[in-house]
Amino acid sequence: MTATSSPRHLLATDEWPDEAIFRVLERAHGLKRSPGGAELAGKVLGMVFFDPSLRTRASFEVAMLRHGGHAITLEPGRGVWGFEHRKGVVMDAAAAEHIVEAARVLGRYVDTLGVRAFPAGPDLETAFADPIVRGFAEHAGVPVINFESARRHPCQGLADAMTLQERLGPRPAGRRFVLAWTWHPNPLPTAVPVSAAIAAARLGMEVTIAHPEGWELHPEDLQAIDAVAGRNGGAMVVTHDLDEAVAGADVVYAKSWGSLRLFGAPDAERAARAAHRGWRIDGARMRSTRNGRGIFMHCLPVRRNVVATDEVLDGPWSVVVDQAENRLHVQRAVLLEVLG
Amino acid sequence: MTATSSPRHLLATDEWPDEAIFRVLERAHGLKRSPGGAELAGKVLGMVFFDPSLRTRASFEVAMLRHGGHAITLEPGRGVWGFEHRKGVVMDAAAAEHIVEAARVLGRYVDTLGVRAFPAGPDLETAFADPIVRGFAEHAGVPVINFESARRHPCQGLADAMTLQERLGPRPAGRRFVLAWTWHPNPLPTAVPVSAAIAAARLGMEVTIAHPEGWELHPEDLQAIDAVAGRNGGAMVVTHDLDEAVAGADVVYAKSWGSLRLFGAPDAERAARAAHRGWRIDGARMRSTRNGRGIFMHCLPVRRNVVATDEVLDGPWSVVVDQAENRLHVQRAVLLEVLG
Amino acid sequence: MTATSSPRHLLATDEWPDEAIFRVLERAHGLKRSPGGAELAGKVLGMVFFDPSLRTRASFEVAMLRHGGHAITLEPGRGVWGFEHRKGVVMDAAAAEHIVEAARVLGRYVDTLGVRAFPAGPDLETAFADPIVRGFAEHAGVPVINFESARRHPCQGLADAMTLQERLGPRPAGRRFVLAWTWHPNPLPTAVPVSAAIAAARLGMEVTIAHPEGWELHPEDLQAIDAVAGRNGGAMVVTHDLDEAVAGADVVYAKSWGSLRLFGAPDAERAARAAHRGWRIDGARMRSTRNGRGIFMHCLPVRRNVVATDEVLDGPWSVVVDQAENRLHVQRAVLLEVLG
Repeated sequence: MTATSSPRHLLATDEWPDEAIFRVLERAHGLKRSPGGAELAGKVLGMVFFDPSLRTRASFEVAMLRHGGHAITLEPGRGVWGFEHRKGVVMDAAAAEHIVEAARVLGRYVDTLGVRAFPAGPDLETAFADPIVRGFAEHAGVPVINFESARRHPCQGLADAMTLQERLGPRPAGRRFVLAWTWHPNPLPTAVPVSAAIAAARLGMEVTIAHPEGWELHPEDLQAIDAVAGRNGGAMVVTHDLDEAVAGADVVYAKSWGSLRLFGAPDAERAARAAHRGWRIDGARMRSTRNGRGIFMHCLPVRRNVVATDEVLDGPWSVVVDQAENRLHVQRAVLLEVLG
Repeated sequence: MTATSSPRHLLATDEWPDEAIFRVLERAHGLKRSPGGAELAGKVLGMVFFDPSLRTRASFEVAMLRHGGHAITLEPGRGVWGFEHRKGVVMDAAAAEHIVEAARVLGRYVDTLGVRAFPAGPDLETAFADPIVRGFAEHAGVPVINFESARRHPCQGLADAMTLQERLGPRPAGRRFVLAWTWHPNPLPTAVPVSAAIAAARLGMEVTIAHPEGWELHPEDLQAIDAVAGRNGGAMVVTHDLDEAVAGADVVYAKSWGSLRLFGAPDAERAARAAHRGWRIDGARMRSTRNGRGIFMHCLPVRRNVVATDEVLDGPWSVVVDQAENRLHVQRAVLLEVLG
Repeated sequence: MTATSSPRHLLATDEWPDEAIFRVLERAHGLKRSPGGAELAGKVLGMVFFDPSLRTRASFEVAMLRHGGHAITLEPGRGVWGFEHRKGVVMDAAAAEHIVEAARVLGRYVDTLGVRAFPAGPDLETAFADPIVRGFAEHAGVPVINFESARRHPCQGLADAMTLQERLGPRPAGRRFVLAWTWHPNPLPTAVPVSAAIAAARLGMEVTIAHPEGWELHPEDLQAIDAVAGRNGGAMVVTHDLDEAVAGADVVYAKSWGSLRLFGAPDAERAARAAHRGWRIDGARMRSTRNGRGIFMHCLPVRRNVVATDEVLDGPWSVVVDQAENRLHVQRAVLLEVLG
């Protein structure tokens, strides 16, 4: 990721210094035990959704309300290509507005902006430049929070880190975190798995990324995970053997994502992944974790009996609802950090 | 209806004890004369709309605001089948999320949930089990209010009861309430007419249900109306003669609904109902009510000159706008009951 | 415009007396320097969007919040023809609700209503009667603010006036304001250009309307502009020569609109306008303004390098973001005027 964003934005947790992340996490644990106050009275968060959201929208709206502020929802609703982001273009096609004006104007109305824009574009390079979220950050004049872009989902990553701390302690150095690719009917973005791996790496965990050959994460993202691990005493390895990976693990984080080699070709991607339906977390795999008591994580929504079985999701391993709840508390902490 | 719901939910008024209903109604009359206060400060209502809403959304949002709380709107937006509700299913088709996770997570964010889900499903039995609304009630961990399901629309029923009390007194025992089926271009759900009949039955009224042969309400719902009438001194009869029904009536509640025999076959239903276009409330029918001064009710939206004529809707009989306003006040009372 | 609206509505600025407009503008300048207060505590604005909105929705929602009130959003979402507005119609087609009931009911829930309904209808006469916005004003029982109809966009006009005052002083009598038609791929409504011209006319400016032959504004709207100009010491002229118009101008307000002669025939309109792609504001045209320092205005969204070049939008002439910000402040003033 380029380092163009000013520190007050939250575009990617790996762009924030370690101490800022640990400060936010500590604050989030405290907030979870407190109903909130009037810290954000008079403040307004503008939430711009180029793509749909249920959890993010609800949890941010409640986060603002719990501290006396308000969130407003803006759904351009025409998909990301209703907005132009390229410089110098003659706008005589579908896009009726440029990101420059949209960001500048919304920045005059609200105190901070959240922006969600999934990967879109003619090619991987364009999509992976996160032009919408970074365009808002460049032009809005107020702090911008990434509500999930092609590359990162920082609030999910923070919630994952908080949940790991709740279960394993504040610095579970050396514990084994497995990011486990799973089969899914559709090719999904890589923002969540990358952000989760960064979260575990930050806590000094040994991160194993398990996926079939051909489903490699983006090299720049692997470097980012590795860099965060390196400076926090953790490590990162990649494997293509799911059973070996989960055996003895402390944490199994299930997540499907699409092959970047087949970006923009979803039908070919689906055909290629058809062979990998066995990549699914079931009770047997969870029983093979450390003492049979590893933690099962997922960002939700989760397809039952596809990504993980009912036995896992309803069993003692699962912390997925805690993860989702913690979205609320880390976001309260982020908002207080950014707006306070 | 099964009795699985805990008392703090409001899924169906007939599942609440009579004294709770009368307490809510009394409170609603008082609230109508009061702007509100800070009773719900810090409280958040999450409104989940699987189907669209104008009146329900606006009136619940204002209800929370009038008492210092807030409502947030969540529109899964993909229709009810975007969510899975069956147990044990392999979720490799369209549904990306199970109701179990959606309910558990939203229950961590808000203090109470409202859920609207119209009848949907491969067959009447599935649709009439109200799986979405009851699934939320089972898993959310917070009180769930039915914002209209296949079977019930309890808030409309309470507003109907309040409006009846305003016009006829707190216990209009023995007065004649006619639920009058009317023609309409589309087959509509039966939640509203059943809920209205329960409301009148609760007040001890003599309930006449008039509809063409073939448009019978569900036997379980007829039993529910009859049971409420029985324990409150009222009665229930069914007729296929609209003119006879409205003659001398105190109240004519117009409402169209679809034939349950033709559930899931809307084209066949429309063909069958074509013969019944004369089932419409006009001035002549209202003049045949008791002293020509019967009350005309409808839940809105109403198709003018189809369900009822302009003369009726703009005449002295109509209380439809009061009914709609009373939605606000009964909902304020319900929220104070459930969250207070 | 007919004068049926009661004074408390804001349907068209030309229906408000001059002194009320200048009072609102003076208040808006003051509010821009103030965060707001609790003047609208307990008040609710209902925003009814028959057509989409980004800026209007965001700025009104923030306007209410800045003064302790709240706004709720209602999107009928089925387009304007989901609602019937004609009297006496048998509603057996698509429209499920009449504007009469919708307005009466919403007026019971909220303290004021904003309504957006773009031109729609079988013909110009129907569309230009503004039946939706005026129907709400007739039946709601609370003040109605026009959020943009076929004929007017009063809040944009007020923001335009405020921006002109910021740059040219409170009464820039005699300064030259050019409303410059520009090419655009689609035929757009005339509400904004008419409202902007009225704003400039009110300030006593010399208003020049420049457009190709065939793109005349509606004769009644030209009369309205002329009438406001006449009683405020301004003037109005129409020209078909863009270069002559902008030479020496103090203000260039770029805006595209569709030919009313070809109303309802968008393909024919696009073919006719193809010849006029040169109607675009570029640096050369701005350098020909008074001392090369004329002000460039546009209501946004703007198509870059179509309506105006990057050089203009990013150059020293442009005040388009101030215009958009001023929407917020004039709307705060309007809400305080209407609800205070």
